[in-house]
Amino acid sequence: MDSKLAVGIDLGGTNIKSAMVTANGEIALHRSRPTLSERGPNPVLDDMVEMVDELVKAAGVPRDNVVGLGLGSPGPLSHRDGVIYKAANLPGWKDVRVRRYLLEHTGLPSVLDNDANAAAFGEFWVGAGKGKRDIAVLTLGTGIGAGAVLGGEVLRGHFENASEIGHLIVHVDGKPCSCGQLGCLEAYASPGNLAHEMTEMIRGGQASSLAEVLDKQGTLETRDIAEACRDGDELATEMWDRACKFIAVGCINIQHAYNVETLVLGGGMANAGALLLDNVRRFHREMAWRLVDDAPEIVISKLGHDAGVIGAAGLAWAARDASIIA
Amino acid sequence: MDSKLAVGIDLGGTNIKSAMVTANGEIALHRSRPTLSERGPNPVLDDMVEMVDELVKAAGVPRDNVVGLGLGSPGPLSHRDGVIYKAANLPGWKDVRVRRYLLEHTGLPSVLDNDANAAAFGEFWVGAGKGKRDIAVLTLGTGIGAGAVLGGEVLRGHFENASEIGHLIVHVDGKPCSCGQLGCLEAYASPGNLAHEMTEMIRGGQASSLAEVLDKQGTLETRDIAEACRDGDELATEMWDRACKFIAVGCINIQHAYNVETLVLGGGMANAGALLLDNVRRFHREMAWRLVDDAPEIVISKLGHDAGVIGAAGLAWAARDASIIA
Repeated sequence: MDSKLAVGIDLGGTNIKSAMVTANGEIALHRSRPTLSERGPNPVLDDMVEMVDELVKAAGVPRDNVVGLGLGSPGPLSHRDGVIYKAANLPGWKDVRVRRYLLEHTGLPSVLDNDANAAAFGEFWVGAGKGKRDIAVLTLGTGIGAGAVLGGEVLRGHFENASEIGHLIVHVDGKPCSCGQLGCLEAYASPGNLAHEMTEMIRGGQASSLAEVLDKQGTLETRDIAEACRDGDELATEMWDRACKFIAVGCINIQHAYNVETLVLGGGMANAGALLLDNVRRFHREMAWRLVDDAPEIVISKLGHDAGVIGAAGLAWAARDASIIA
Repeated sequence: MDSKLAVGIDLGGTNIKSAMVTANGEIALHRSRPTLSERGPNPVLDDMVEMVDELVKAAGVPRDNVVGLGLGSPGPLSHRDGVIYKAANLPGWKDVRVRRYLLEHTGLPSVLDNDANAAAFGEFWVGAGKGKRDIAVLTLGTGIGAGAVLGGEVLRGHFENASEIGHLIVHVDGKPCSCGQLGCLEAYASPGNLAHEMTEMIRGGQASSLAEVLDKQGTLETRDIAEACRDGDELATEMWDRACKFIAVGCINIQHAYNVETLVLGGGMANAGALLLDNVRRFHREMAWRLVDDAPEIVISKLGHDAGVIGAAGLAWAARDASIIA
């Protein structure tokens, strides 16, 4: 029993990450390769199949010991039908029947979900939400992904596109968002927007220690801005605080919509640790109602960048237990 | 079997409404009396018990044919524990063990839920959301109540205070809301706010055909404003449209959070029919993303003011089927 494993794959625009994951959510071994997405869907799918073969071989277990395969992918996609309709950062993907392909080429019962749901399920299963039944995860990557596990189940919604918390409107008639709406949370609070606005302000002549970094690198990363905050840079601190304030508004809206026990902050921005958490908690405390004592505990992701791959494997484990996979 | 009934009670600040409801969600008979809430909780509870006795007698069925009692109440409250912690518009209610009281004094298995959840369950069961598995209901009364039924289950949340859509922040640092937050949907879109703002503007000297109505009545009702819109009053139209725009933002946020198939508009403001629906749909179309085709169908409540009492009875029917009641 202990030698049973599930494969988790986290398909991103830059890398495909894969791992063999135990029933306890531990990564037994992992592999990563560049996505090379310009080749279109089929070579990428074949890469995934190859990676599964490699993992099985490297694990040194009979294939029968591998209970299933979970894939977390950008969407929109259908978990129910196992189809990726489109995928951000993956050109040429259109209505790709991924689940069937993986099942046929690996022989493993396969499950597909979007990357934010996979990460949320990972945190729920063995991460910062372990032992809770109701959690939400905000993945602060470039944009803002989100997933919710309510009553122990991933919330998917009728159109399988629930938990798009980054696109809640938090400022009516506000900033244009890349999604086409005005005033989305993502347009104010995403790390991508933070870096973009800092860049614009510095290029516009505002003083910041990051001018030199920008000059050298050509771009700013979230970690550069976090470091400048720690070094007391005023502009960086002001902009970081503003992003945290909007993230806190996202937390308040999650509180009122889902009423979860635990709210996990993940993604690259969460590497900033206390600089993120303390600020978000402070703004949440200042801005949320006190009418009812229903504030979630806000915490930092425990699984970090592995949330997606662990969660994808977890979905395969869960699907096996529920016997609901293809 | 056909003669089985469940009691539904809708406890409001002004009236207690009660009904005998069939397994098909039809009201067999109903009773109403003023709440007289200044008497505190116990006389109100005794009134409810009396109303149940009256209903049983009037129905002319043996008490054994009554399968249960559902109560929808203002909150915050606990469905799980059957306790009303506090109740808006009901002074003196504090941690009242309502479910146990009703069970002991009526002999009926009892279930408690908040009024917005009861109304949502009613619309899901036999109303505008009948046949759907995922719906949300916005009850546009004085404030904005909301309930969601996801996958056929009422969403309650870890703190049993989910679906407070009226208190999603839709305008950061915006208008103060009675809940203590800034920029809540309710502060912009509620019928109570609409009437309040119209009153202020007319008293401040802005021209409107409603000046005369206000003079005569001392207050403005939602229906007065709707009528003025139909008569072409410019100020009323402008303010009504603004409320509808914010309600559409609420619909967009529900779309992204819950991803429901159907979104029901209920409460007093829904009596305006097309004047509400057409405007909300129009703003929704203009403001919501087109990135994914996941817009809910927005419809008007089918059960109207009976949604709460029918839904409360429906919760009793559902609890009996699931055998989860006290």
